[in-house]
Amino acid sequence: MTEHAFIARYLAPLATDPGAWGLKDDAAEFVSTPGRRLVLTTDTLVEGVHFLPSDPPETWGPKLLAVNVSDALAKGARPAACLLNLSWPPALGEPAFAAFAQGLGDALSQWGVRLLGGDTTATPGPLVLSLTLLAEAPPRGPVRRSGASAGQVLALTDTAPIGLGGLGLAVARGEGLVEAALGTRALAHYRRPDVSPLAAADLIAAYATASLDVSDGLLIDANRLAQASGVGVEIALDRVGWPVADAPLSQRLGWATAGDDYQALFTVPADAWPALQADAAKAAVPLRAIGHTRAGPAGLTLTDAGVGVALPARLGFEHGL
Amino acid sequence: MTEHAFIARYLAPLATDPGAWGLKDDAAEFVSTPGRRLVLTTDTLVEGVHFLPSDPPETWGPKLLAVNVSDALAKGARPAACLLNLSWPPALGEPAFAAFAQGLGDALSQWGVRLLGGDTTATPGPLVLSLTLLAEAPPRGPVRRSGASAGQVLALTDTAPIGLGGLGLAVARGEGLVEAALGTRALAHYRRPDVSPLAAADLIAAYATASLDVSDGLLIDANRLAQASGVGVEIALDRVGWPVADAPLSQRLGWATAGDDYQALFTVPADAWPALQADAAKAAVPLRAIGHTRAGPAGLTLTDAGVGVALPARLGFEHGL
Repeated sequence: MTEHAFIARYLAPLATDPGAWGLKDDAAEFVSTPGRRLVLTTDTLVEGVHFLPSDPPETWGPKLLAVNVSDALAKGARPAACLLNLSWPPALGEPAFAAFAQGLGDALSQWGVRLLGGDTTATPGPLVLSLTLLAEAPPRGPVRRSGASAGQVLALTDTAPIGLGGLGLAVARGEGLVEAALGTRALAHYRRPDVSPLAAADLIAAYATASLDVSDGLLIDANRLAQASGVGVEIALDRVGWPVADAPLSQRLGWATAGDDYQALFTVPADAWPALQADAAKAAVPLRAIGHTRAGPAGLTLTDAGVGVALPARLGFEHGL
Repeated sequence: MTEHAFIARYLAPLATDPGAWGLKDDAAEFVSTPGRRLVLTTDTLVEGVHFLPSDPPETWGPKLLAVNVSDALAKGARPAACLLNLSWPPALGEPAFAAFAQGLGDALSQWGVRLLGGDTTATPGPLVLSLTLLAEAPPRGPVRRSGASAGQVLALTDTAPIGLGGLGLAVARGEGLVEAALGTRALAHYRRPDVSPLAAADLIAAYATASLDVSDGLLIDANRLAQASGVGVEIALDRVGWPVADAPLSQRLGWATAGDDYQALFTVPADAWPALQADAAKAAVPLRAIGHTRAGPAGLTLTDAGVGVALPARLGFEHGL
């Protein structure tokens, strides 16, 4: 079968927005919501790097969309539309393509994201999936990493504990000994990240001074917020939610540097924190206060039950190039 | 080196638009031109499929941008901004990354396109480059493939003869015997497609009833326009520009199905053709009338010096998946 037959059979049925032109043209048209500002984000997943060949094909699309949605929500923007780049090894076969498309379609419906276009090509190499997401922020604009100041609350969305994705990767690789129910939940989060509901975007837009997506590890991403804002960020490790309560510090530090969390980490003026908590409860967005910002040199410090903890040498995941 | 070091050293200097946030955030902001409609297109290049490992790294970026720009121009839209997905095999090394970035920067400047963001990841496999382009169309909107009606002129931009890209691929592979100067020009077009100037977008927006980008082969793309519009399209092969004048029909049919042309093919009401020719001459956009549309079954027919020519079995390039 040709790329056009695959597109017509499996992807065109997902592209129901008029601006997608049925995936039958060279381009697409995006019609934005009046008064909203356009936020762009894009993420690539490489088979064997960001997901495993053993992950079921129906999970590839949900993960691809979720990691992009997570970026948008952290900016206070609601996902609107996307384009998909698919470099497909023909050896994977048509049933895998069908399962991938079905999973992607479910995820698009779940998030209310319109598929507008893309490019499907063959590749001899690993499957490479890129998705570019167009999201919309309110008139005050997207929330940057750089707006935090001293004396603010450091908050974290809490749809999954920090380290659960890293634990899921270990389970997928057949490493790590965990209790069965936790292993199942961890694997599910690794394959289909449990991202905050859409309402998180509105809360972040309304309250956050700085915000980012925790994807490479809590510590490395918290440090990025600190550096971008030029403030000190202190995390109380005993206030973070972990996959296993009362785990030893070394294990918690491993989870805090594992990545694949897809939670939003953001700062909020202290006097606004009670109102945010009330709004979050109404919107069913789970949140935790896990620390605070302070004046002084930009950077990250850790405490555990009030006692200072040294930063590990490696704060999170980075691709070596 | 890490992905962040590569981004900071080589890509951030190219991302000078304020909306790119210095490539230091999870996302970017696109500020559109008031009154213009947003057109999206994306193309992926896979090493060994769309370009060759022997192509110099400084040509990868210009090709990646050109193939996307060509799509936008064919819709009557002016390229504005882009995001870049780079799946990079570390074995390629830093000098190749530097050369890639330099070539990309030159191409962004040439086209006036703002780099707003992207994602850089490692891959064990072939280099995969995706670029998503945001372009802007005038208020009448982007020009689709589907607007042609009977009795219109079929026009082709003519910055490079049809088949030159295919010839360049043969030269790059060490195949095909061509005269040295032609071989050099063909290889240059294969590596850095000679796309129409930006003014082509305005002409297409002003005059075209249907339009598409010729990238998979003149015949397959002309047939797509015919099918989308529901008209007959007739190409006079003797009016097309070819790499070698007076080449035998079999060779011209090979060129007409080779792909990698990156010209715009579009239809124009016959009574507007003289005005378009005058405007194109003023704007220095080379054009050719290569046929016409007619009532009857949707599809493509060919003539050569007035004599009907049978369609070849294969009309152009398609990925097998």
